[in-house]
Amino acid sequence: MSTDRNKKNYKLKQSRYSKKAPKKGQKKGAKNVRQTHKAPRKPSVKVSFLGGLNEIGKNITLIECEGDMLIVDCGMAFPDGDMLGVDLVIPDFTYIEQNADKIRGIVLTHGHEDHIGGLPFLLSRVNIPLYGTPLTLGLVGNKLREHSLFNKTKMHVVNAGDTVKLGCMHVKFIHVNHSIPDAVAFAIKTPAGTIVHTGDFKIDCTPISGDTIDLSSFAKVGDEGVLALLGESTNAERAGYTPTERMVSDSLNMLFNKAEQYRIIIATFASNVNRVQQIINCAHKYGRKVAFSGRSMVNYMDVAKKLGYLHIPDNILIDLDMLDKYPRQQIVLVTTGSQGEPMSALSRMAYSDHRKVMVGEGDFIIISANPIPGNEKTVGNVVDELLKKGCRVIYESMYDVHVSGHACQEELKLIHRLVRPKYFIPVHGEQKHLRKHADLAEFLGMERKNIFIGDVGSTIELNEEYMKELPPVPAGKVFVDGLGVGDVGSIVLRDRKHLGQDGLIIIVASLDVYDGHVISGPDVVSRGFVYVRESETLLEEVRKLALDILEDCAEKNIHEWGVIKNRIKDEVSKLIAQRTRRAPMILPILQEV
Amino acid sequence: MSTDRNKKNYKLKQSRYSKKAPKKGQKKGAKNVRQTHKAPRKPSVKVSFLGGLNEIGKNITLIECEGDMLIVDCGMAFPDGDMLGVDLVIPDFTYIEQNADKIRGIVLTHGHEDHIGGLPFLLSRVNIPLYGTPLTLGLVGNKLREHSLFNKTKMHVVNAGDTVKLGCMHVKFIHVNHSIPDAVAFAIKTPAGTIVHTGDFKIDCTPISGDTIDLSSFAKVGDEGVLALLGESTNAERAGYTPTERMVSDSLNMLFNKAEQYRIIIATFASNVNRVQQIINCAHKYGRKVAFSGRSMVNYMDVAKKLGYLHIPDNILIDLDMLDKYPRQQIVLVTTGSQGEPMSALSRMAYSDHRKVMVGEGDFIIISANPIPGNEKTVGNVVDELLKKGCRVIYESMYDVHVSGHACQEELKLIHRLVRPKYFIPVHGEQKHLRKHADLAEFLGMERKNIFIGDVGSTIELNEEYMKELPPVPAGKVFVDGLGVGDVGSIVLRDRKHLGQDGLIIIVASLDVYDGHVISGPDVVSRGFVYVRESETLLEEVRKLALDILEDCAEKNIHEWGVIKNRIKDEVSKLIAQRTRRAPMILPILQEV
Repeated sequence: MSTDRNKKNYKLKQSRYSKKAPKKGQKKGAKNVRQTHKAPRKPSVKVSFLGGLNEIGKNITLIECEGDMLIVDCGMAFPDGDMLGVDLVIPDFTYIEQNADKIRGIVLTHGHEDHIGGLPFLLSRVNIPLYGTPLTLGLVGNKLREHSLFNKTKMHVVNAGDTVKLGCMHVKFIHVNHSIPDAVAFAIKTPAGTIVHTGDFKIDCTPISGDTIDLSSFAKVGDEGVLALLGESTNAERAGYTPTERMVSDSLNMLFNKAEQYRIIIATFASNVNRVQQIINCAHKYGRKVAFSGRSMVNYMDVAKKLGYLHIPDNILIDLDMLDKYPRQQIVLVTTGSQGEPMSALSRMAYSDHRKVMVGEGDFIIISANPIPGNEKTVGNVVDELLKKGCRVIYESMYDVHVSGHACQEELKLIHRLVRPKYFIPVHGEQKHLRKHADLAEFLGMERKNIFIGDVGSTIELNEEYMKELPPVPAGKVFVDGLGVGDVGSIVLRDRKHLGQDGLIIIVASLDVYDGHVISGPDVVSRGFVYVRESETLLEEVRKLALDILEDCAEKNIHEWGVIKNRIKDEVSKLIAQRTRRAPMILPILQEV
Repeated sequence: MSTDRNKKNYKLKQSRYSKKAPKKGQKKGAKNVRQTHKAPRKPSVKVSFLGGLNEIGKNITLIECEGDMLIVDCGMAFPDGDMLGVDLVIPDFTYIEQNADKIRGIVLTHGHEDHIGGLPFLLSRVNIPLYGTPLTLGLVGNKLREHSLFNKTKMHVVNAGDTVKLGCMHVKFIHVNHSIPDAVAFAIKTPAGTIVHTGDFKIDCTPISGDTIDLSSFAKVGDEGVLALLGESTNAERAGYTPTERMVSDSLNMLFNKAEQYRIIIATFASNVNRVQQIINCAHKYGRKVAFSGRSMVNYMDVAKKLGYLHIPDNILIDLDMLDKYPRQQIVLVTTGSQGEPMSALSRMAYSDHRKVMVGEGDFIIISANPIPGNEKTVGNVVDELLKKGCRVIYESMYDVHVSGHACQEELKLIHRLVRPKYFIPVHGEQKHLRKHADLAEFLGMERKNIFIGDVGSTIELNEEYMKELPPVPAGKVFVDGLGVGDVGSIVLRDRKHLGQDGLIIIVASLDVYDGHVISGPDVVSRGFVYVRESETLLEEVRKLALDILEDCAEKNIHEWGVIKNRIKDEVSKLIAQRTRRAPMILPILQEV
């Protein structure tokens, strides 16, 4: 065992910290005076949150000490229902761009979109080296290739257990269990003390592949003293333990037995390599062939296979086009769409829109996932459609076909007890999750004043003596819509909402350039307001009203278009509200001839 | 006990049925011959579903026998997320209007919106007498007053246990437990046999007010023979029993104890009179005043109080304006908004938009309801906002502050066993609920061929000899938007969706009436597409492209506007897609001068 040697290295590194610290500390102190807040005796570390607080997704944290900065993760988030037409949401990178020269690297906890999905957008602006485990970087690599960023990005493969030096900071990669292999937590040793960032994790004592979470490293870091713990809060509301991934295996076996006469279709998260491994194992055992459906499923399995995270027995994998060559009892189809996403493979099957797969009475469909909050309705709709087609459908908690990848309360407590930090900052969650996690820390004996519940943009400075909140840094949501990054903002969204709810009425007229009288029009065009043929009278009333207003303005020598347009808007709005109690967008367009 | 007497009456009625049956049966048979399907020997009953199948809400069922029709309930549904701008959804009443002369009455199971909400829209077209329990008709009455229909509608108050004669059918009102008082099921005796419709129900052996569900009547009807059971399926996916409403009381007491130093705010369904009763009892016990917040809460409590379903101790109720006159520890505020509805009282409090109530650290907020599927996200957002304001918030399953009003599997089984119908039709639920309920009936020993899973519009004909599906009757969703009923259809919704997702670009030009050359414009106006100032170049490109097309058409003597507009649409769409990968609505408007 190499524990002793590691320990020595550790100590050596630590002593080097203590030698360097005073010098850099003075430098920083001097600088701090100019920044108007009191110079600390000891070095301090600054933590800024550009995402992941008060939201699910878009996880990204900046850590700064002695003029060096590193970034933990760079995720994206899926749009809320009110972000109409937005494809995805990324962090505001302004603060990173402002500090580009200080940034030594981005360390990645794992390969989920909410931790790596923002990378292409950041790296297209600032070139920063990446540090991650093999699978994580394999997935990032694919992403960067799509954005033509692969060749110009430096990617350093780091294995769990290794330590990376980034400026004055040393980042130890600690193996954790999660719903994707090769996930890590970080112990970040800074001159001001050690910060532990859990990433996303659970404690699985019987994982499908790899080891149990490296509790020993958490314990060792804890023994050496931890300044602050940044702990994920996704399941902080849930009591007890998250069950082991292995539990799913029993359920799958039982269902494979039950579904003997059926084709089996299983929908799950494309990134859940261990889940797919279990499905493949089951298929092998029951003599079934396996096909993958859905672009991301194929991509993930490709990377996972290449890097040795997925083991597929020979001659078991078949192409989607080969489905018809086998009797349906010999098929397992592994597909995307477990969240009812409208364009996903499973949704297409449900709505008879899949080019290659038709489902019906001979299909036994297992949704091996829980709906993420907000997706309950869409998942339910897909289940209903599949049932209407005569499929057997196993969903949600009917059988144990899914387990979470996140730590529940008892697991969180364990990590707190091992790490024993001075300060605690709950991360990765909405307010309710952060609060619950904070309550849990308090319940474990931590004083409330040593717990910080932040928001996107929050920055805190901490060392052994204090933790204080600094003014927030630039941060927020940037919307990606098609090729546009950030060109859809609140005004555009407000208009989209208005148009989507109430539709619009356009009033077009050509006016005489000399006297303002109407030469052509006004024409009234409506979209998304009423079915026009049934409301001809109303639209004719609108036309007459607009004509009266235009002629009245001409008579009264009112030629300012702003004034005329506002009168049309106001009076037409009133008329429409009276007649229909609705409020479509009114858009007068005038032309001079 | 009057059981014996009842039994006699029953037999008398039954024998009358058998005397009448052949005559009417022949008449119907004769008619059926013309309708091309075989004439039945015995009378049959037709059941048509205008709502409530494959959907949650909009419950309405038609029952027809020997030329007489009756309607069970007339509900509304809330719009799905893709029904943009729609306020509510009601059934298509075409079939009812077509058969207006046959309809003897509408019998109402209880006063929830999904059972009575469609009444004003139906009654404004066809005048039909209503039959319901006192509270149900009290709530309906308020609704009809709002629509000025109160005076012209005949409302017959019927108490549970009583029987109403509607043409050749006799409807027995059977008391059930539910999340609103005064709910009933129906045993509908027709010449073709008895149909039992459960309405919405649960089995509560310790209800807050009134009796336990009248199992004895279910048993008696079952003993006499039941042709078909129409059973609600809302909780058919849930194993076990729904807990008693009384359980909430313990949790409330515990929380009132815990919240000694706080103002207590409880959000629950306005219609859940028994829940509010328990809150009032608790408030009384702990010496707190009670105020109601939210229009529907005030309205429901008004009716419930007047009719004796809510008992409020003297001097405990205060007006919302009086809140400041009491210390916060002496207040309980009962409010709407348990589903996170944007305009509800609780949402307004959360987003600091309530005119009279400001919430903060002194508030202890209990959400005494579970999110209805689809509302999880909005409820979560409200909880997050309240937490950010420093409130303590108790939500969802943290404590037992809510129980369902619907029967779980064991309760459903019990009703099936008591009623022992020949045929079974699961109602009130999405496909997955209906299927589960059908599975349950099969599990209890019923043959699958005697179970019918229908859809909106489905019509079945049944008697002792057969159950067969007839061609569907006109049925569907009618959208209510503002004052408009049915004027928003699929085209309008498609446009709203398109506008909401992608926005629009309007291109306006005035053309010379003689040669088609451009006299004014083209002007390009966009809404909900991009932030205009940042995309001036793109919009200028669009303008130039449109100008080129218009001039090209003029040169080539193309004067058909349809052709010109389509060219503009196509080419501008292409340009926009290339530049932005988006697809806004393109709306060319041409005027002749």
